[in-house]
Amino acid sequence: MTTSPRIAIDAMGGDEGVRVMVAGAALARHRHESFKFLLVGDEVQIKAALENHPNLRAASEILHTTEVVTGDDKPSQALRKSRGSSMGLAINAVKSGDAAAAVSAGNTGALMAMAKVALRTMPGIDRPALAALLPTLTDTDVVMLDLGANTECDARNLVQFAVMGAAYSRILYNWEKPRVRLLNIGTEEMKGTDSLRFAAQHLRDSPELHMAFQGFIEADKINRGDCDVVVCDGFSGNIALKSIEGAARFVTDLLRRAFTSSIRSKFGFLVSRPATELLKHHLDPNNHNGAVFLGLNGVIVKSHGSASIEGVANAVKVAARLVEDDITKRIAQDLEQISAKEVIEE
Amino acid sequence: MTTSPRIAIDAMGGDEGVRVMVAGAALARHRHESFKFLLVGDEVQIKAALENHPNLRAASEILHTTEVVTGDDKPSQALRKSRGSSMGLAINAVKSGDAAAAVSAGNTGALMAMAKVALRTMPGIDRPALAALLPTLTDTDVVMLDLGANTECDARNLVQFAVMGAAYSRILYNWEKPRVRLLNIGTEEMKGTDSLRFAAQHLRDSPELHMAFQGFIEADKINRGDCDVVVCDGFSGNIALKSIEGAARFVTDLLRRAFTSSIRSKFGFLVSRPATELLKHHLDPNNHNGAVFLGLNGVIVKSHGSASIEGVANAVKVAARLVEDDITKRIAQDLEQISAKEVIEE
Repeated sequence: MTTSPRIAIDAMGGDEGVRVMVAGAALARHRHESFKFLLVGDEVQIKAALENHPNLRAASEILHTTEVVTGDDKPSQALRKSRGSSMGLAINAVKSGDAAAAVSAGNTGALMAMAKVALRTMPGIDRPALAALLPTLTDTDVVMLDLGANTECDARNLVQFAVMGAAYSRILYNWEKPRVRLLNIGTEEMKGTDSLRFAAQHLRDSPELHMAFQGFIEADKINRGDCDVVVCDGFSGNIALKSIEGAARFVTDLLRRAFTSSIRSKFGFLVSRPATELLKHHLDPNNHNGAVFLGLNGVIVKSHGSASIEGVANAVKVAARLVEDDITKRIAQDLEQISAKEVIEE
Repeated sequence: MTTSPRIAIDAMGGDEGVRVMVAGAALARHRHESFKFLLVGDEVQIKAALENHPNLRAASEILHTTEVVTGDDKPSQALRKSRGSSMGLAINAVKSGDAAAAVSAGNTGALMAMAKVALRTMPGIDRPALAALLPTLTDTDVVMLDLGANTECDARNLVQFAVMGAAYSRILYNWEKPRVRLLNIGTEEMKGTDSLRFAAQHLRDSPELHMAFQGFIEADKINRGDCDVVVCDGFSGNIALKSIEGAARFVTDLLRRAFTSSIRSKFGFLVSRPATELLKHHLDPNNHNGAVFLGLNGVIVKSHGSASIEGVANAVKVAARLVEDDITKRIAQDLEQISAKEVIEE
């Protein structure tokens, strides 16, 4: 094992294949030169892809396998591929200490199930959560979790998610106390479910945590940028995330239709192209790529299945930052603060 | 009491006041000439507003009161104003048979609480639901319910919401069997909560209902227009609706910023103005105005607080259509079909 930190890359996951995963890792390495890589997948394809990236090749080792987890594999099927597949081997490298983090663009459910079984949840965390970055009107993204790992959550889960999300946001932006809110259907104290109310009470009563808890947030405010971390159960989080994605696509579809409805507007569109490119850039999921499974004994980052080279590079950079700044330790420190108290739910 | 149907208008509710409510009713009456109106609120203001609408004045009666439910009134406070406020009197007119429907642009929580207490749920319905219309890429809107009346729902509630939403969609667009889906975090049968799975099972097993049940829908597909009715609990529905509103505003904010970022793009924007006006028209909530409380013994329509004259007119038209086509009877017919079976949840 090397002394510099190493990131395992599931080179076979994702729609775009080995070439994009390898190119993404190479691009990320420009920012994080001390990092080494373990490229997991078909040796022939990986070697061919490395031809164009001598810089990455010098810092990489290849772990050969041809078995892959497909997009159709159910979590239970994927678990049977833990020992042989590129995804499973990348996760196992984290487990054995051969790598400090793993990045995969494969099947989310499979990755979640395998990572949970192999790495287990860290002390003090009952359930891991899936966190992602959403764009805002400001220069920083908002961290949102959980996004689907846990359909139903109690107050204790939500408090732990808040601690994990705050640690992630602190590492991304060096905030001292990120502004944290719980997603709810109103901002008054009596709104929502018992779990939400109890979690809010507990977070309000815990000023020692590394966050500024600011109560509830409604879903129409998520993208405004006046909050750094939005905490929710996996069902609501998935509904909110997909609603936002769908509505953004809906508006841009309408826009495209509007702009192609007449010769005059087509001309206008061409003239204002730089402006619409800016919009496209801001909404491009590749610029916010890198969902993270928080709460495990190890760093696991999920890249979008259809991510571009830049998208993969962003996911790898997220993994590198989480390793450099030791997310697990940061979460553990906050958990110590709250372990003295009990999160009680009726 | 008159023989032609009458709609009670809470003339004092909403941010825009009596003038807009009266002008909206007058505009709606052009489409529904047989309807009469009961205008509830301050007689002096209503009479002044009617000066400009002789056509409406001839078809209206005024019920005078100066007491109003404010936006800050909690439901419990509003209930104490049931007998005296413009909102309360409009609802009571429906209860007594003095009007067939009531339209208010006031406080949603108050309207819901008052309507529930005064009108009670119709036979076979356990809980009323709030349904709204959302724009799609097609020419028709999608009906979505519940949007916040019920934080937690069981399978039985969801099945009843499906029946009510389908009846609403049939009346709006004359569908024979509107396409109905349950909002979930995946489309596979095992996804989501027990309530969702049991509700789906029951709807699948009930081909006699006036709907084409098509399983689950994910939140990113709501606005696509390949589904006519989206059914969910009030918590998820509120999260989805507000996420969509927030994301649409986010994208248009980014767009405005992009278009004003350079002289070149400002020029392009001016040239393509008709196209962006089309977009604005499509996203304008006034064109989809008129949320409905379904499942009560009477028709109650909620207009947006900040609706324009056209917006209020759309809400009044919705009320008129629901009265003309007897929504309550349609729901009752479908309920008879399912009353023979039991919706069982473990």
